Amino acid sequence: MLIEKGGVTSPKGFRASAGYAGIGDDSVKGDIAMIVSSVVGNAAAVYTKNKVKAAHISVMKNHLEGGMAQAIVCNSGNANTCTAHGREIAQRACEIAGRELGIDPVFVLPASTGIIGVQMRPAPFERTIPELAAGLSRDNAAAAAKAIMTTDTRPKEAAVSFKAGGRECVLGAVAKGSGMIHINMGTMLSFMTTDAAISTELLQKALDEEIRDSYNQVSIDGDTSTNDTLAIIANGEAGNVMIDREGADYDSFRAALHEISVEIARKIAGDGEGCTKLIQAHVKNAPGKEEARVISRSIICSDLVKTAIFGEDANWGRVLCAIGYAPCDFSAINIDVDLASAKGVLPVCRGSFAEDFSEDIAAEILSEEEVDIEVDLHDGTEEAYAWGCDLTYDYVKINGEYRT
Amino acid sequence: MLIEKGGVTSPKGFRASAGYAGIGDDSVKGDIAMIVSSVVGNAAAVYTKNKVKAAHISVMKNHLEGGMAQAIVCNSGNANTCTAHGREIAQRACEIAGRELGIDPVFVLPASTGIIGVQMRPAPFERTIPELAAGLSRDNAAAAAKAIMTTDTRPKEAAVSFKAGGRECVLGAVAKGSGMIHINMGTMLSFMTTDAAISTELLQKALDEEIRDSYNQVSIDGDTSTNDTLAIIANGEAGNVMIDREGADYDSFRAALHEISVEIARKIAGDGEGCTKLIQAHVKNAPGKEEARVISRSIICSDLVKTAIFGEDANWGRVLCAIGYAPCDFSAINIDVDLASAKGVLPVCRGSFAEDFSEDIAAEILSEEEVDIEVDLHDGTEEAYAWGCDLTYDYVKINGEYRT
Repeated sequence: MLIEKGGVTSPKGFRASAGYAGIGDDSVKGDIAMIVSSVVGNAAAVYTKNKVKAAHISVMKNHLEGGMAQAIVCNSGNANTCTAHGREIAQRACEIAGRELGIDPVFVLPASTGIIGVQMRPAPFERTIPELAAGLSRDNAAAAAKAIMTTDTRPKEAAVSFKAGGRECVLGAVAKGSGMIHINMGTMLSFMTTDAAISTELLQKALDEEIRDSYNQVSIDGDTSTNDTLAIIANGEAGNVMIDREGADYDSFRAALHEISVEIARKIAGDGEGCTKLIQAHVKNAPGKEEARVISRSIICSDLVKTAIFGEDANWGRVLCAIGYAPCDFSAINIDVDLASAKGVLPVCRGSFAEDFSEDIAAEILSEEEVDIEVDLHDGTEEAYAWGCDLTYDYVKINGEYRT
Repeated sequence: MLIEKGGVTSPKGFRASAGYAGIGDDSVKGDIAMIVSSVVGNAAAVYTKNKVKAAHISVMKNHLEGGMAQAIVCNSGNANTCTAHGREIAQRACEIAGRELGIDPVFVLPASTGIIGVQMRPAPFERTIPELAAGLSRDNAAAAAKAIMTTDTRPKEAAVSFKAGGRECVLGAVAKGSGMIHINMGTMLSFMTTDAAISTELLQKALDEEIRDSYNQVSIDGDTSTNDTLAIIANGEAGNVMIDREGADYDSFRAALHEISVEIARKIAGDGEGCTKLIQAHVKNAPGKEEARVISRSIICSDLVKTAIFGEDANWGRVLCAIGYAPCDFSAINIDVDLASAKGVLPVCRGSFAEDFSEDIAAEILSEEEVDIEVDLHDGTEEAYAWGCDLTYDYVKINGEYRT
């Protein structure tokens, strides 16, 4: 169940802090955050499939070889990607954090987000990490969520509760999204914390499965980032018996992971660069689960669908077009499409042909901040969701001016 | 060799005409065109891979079963896609054209472009096709090129000359592009004419091969249209001995086809909806031809690369990112990137790392209307080109307001 105003410090034994290291240019928002567990926990992560990878990814992979972690250090303002000494600097950040926290640097996970191809320097970490270590508190989850933002307009946090072995457990999450978002295998940057005891193997299995139905179903602009990383630390402070095999407790954790991941996915999509609307595509009665995922993604990735929704124009022909070029096998001869929002549901296409509808009602439905595109393929029984946003003047403005 | 001001009536024995049928809303530009050969010729076509297909495609496929054609009738203003009686209406347009031209309707190829999901009526064809048949002339290629435009800002025509069997032959082409352009297997709409004699089998083989390096390497917005069609008619009026097997004459035709296809591909990309710049990506030293194609397409499809070029911002990190997520196998550890235009060539990345460069020189290079992104993968010997355009405020404006 969703916890109101929850975040990464909602699970027992997690603290966070945030600061400004001078890497980014907004000293109020901050540019560096730390999340620390009271004890070392089991940990797992998934990463971008982009062949060009941020330096932090190889260091994090290396540190997670033992399947355990205790702290996360993340900066915004510089992606530390395509940079000459990137690995050494990510490694150095972990060493400083380890020294200040009194833990082995191998239990520190580094992460970066921001501009690609600009040299990083170690000095900002040397200066700021001691302050972060001194300022750790359960009250700093929101400040940490803010410090890792780039062009995000709002922090993205969530927490859910679940039961395992009779104990009340909590799962928390934070993420930054906004641009260069077409998630493939990880996400932009997202960190999860839980006080449940669960084995590294099951954490990894759960992440690998879950991202296919939540994180990997989000696209802002079709560009898979070089930095995508989703990491989770489970510190066992809830006192449950270690979840080390599948069964009721694992299913409970799995359901909580799905709930929080969809929540974060929707927050990321709803705060895409320049966006004014969250678009949810729901494809049902598809011949297979993967087909449903691919088709729903195809809809929310279409620039033409995205601009039509921005213009609040019920141009459903573009939805049919995007379904039609989805790269998978299915029948396109009997497709129904509804447009829906808090204002109502409107059938716009039946049996792949035009359906008469009222433009006034369509305009009313499309005026909402969340628009759902409901597709029935009548070609099977599987379903999936995908989340994106509209394509606006501000997206062009933000990205035409980002670096200069 | 490129013929100045050439078009579909440059080859011997082809005439064209254009008119206004009231399907679109611009009576000056027109909305219907006809291209007619003096005699029936061999013909071939390639079509969209979108599963949602315009009605004209099944009729054209049916008419090309015999491998011959004599006339093309094409309307803009309505895509005749997802429409209840679409096939019958496309068939009816061919019957009227056949009657007026005194030829078998099976030799007429229909095509449509415009908005999806709006019912077509036969009346505009009944009224206008007789006028078109009466107005056929070699001087009307430009008018026909204009009549088939939708949001295109300029007509797209070209002609090239080549030798076959000692005879001077000509190959002409016309196309409409602009939006919903991510060509896959055909193109938006493009028609070619040639006075060379060449077998249907070789025409089809040449088209199938050629599109992989020209038409299918163009993307405006990542959206593969429901109507993509490229058709060619070869009427033999040049008097060459029929090209019916591979050899020097076929190679000569093949080279001409490549030259005209690249010319049209560049014209389509350079007139993308709302665009201010043509972007050409050239990937060399790739491990395979298909890898080079895929990677070059990945670059020109990236919304982040497209907005950076619009902003004249040398944000090459986004180029590396787009290369990195290209869905194929290659090494990303030693990539060089240059930005180039008529103003010069600027190295911005060497060995996948940042290269120091002058922002002033970068701005100067990016101020041109054509920007080339030159990529050396140092991972093989194959190369490919792809063409796209920048993503601008006007793209959002055009597509936020298209239907309403």
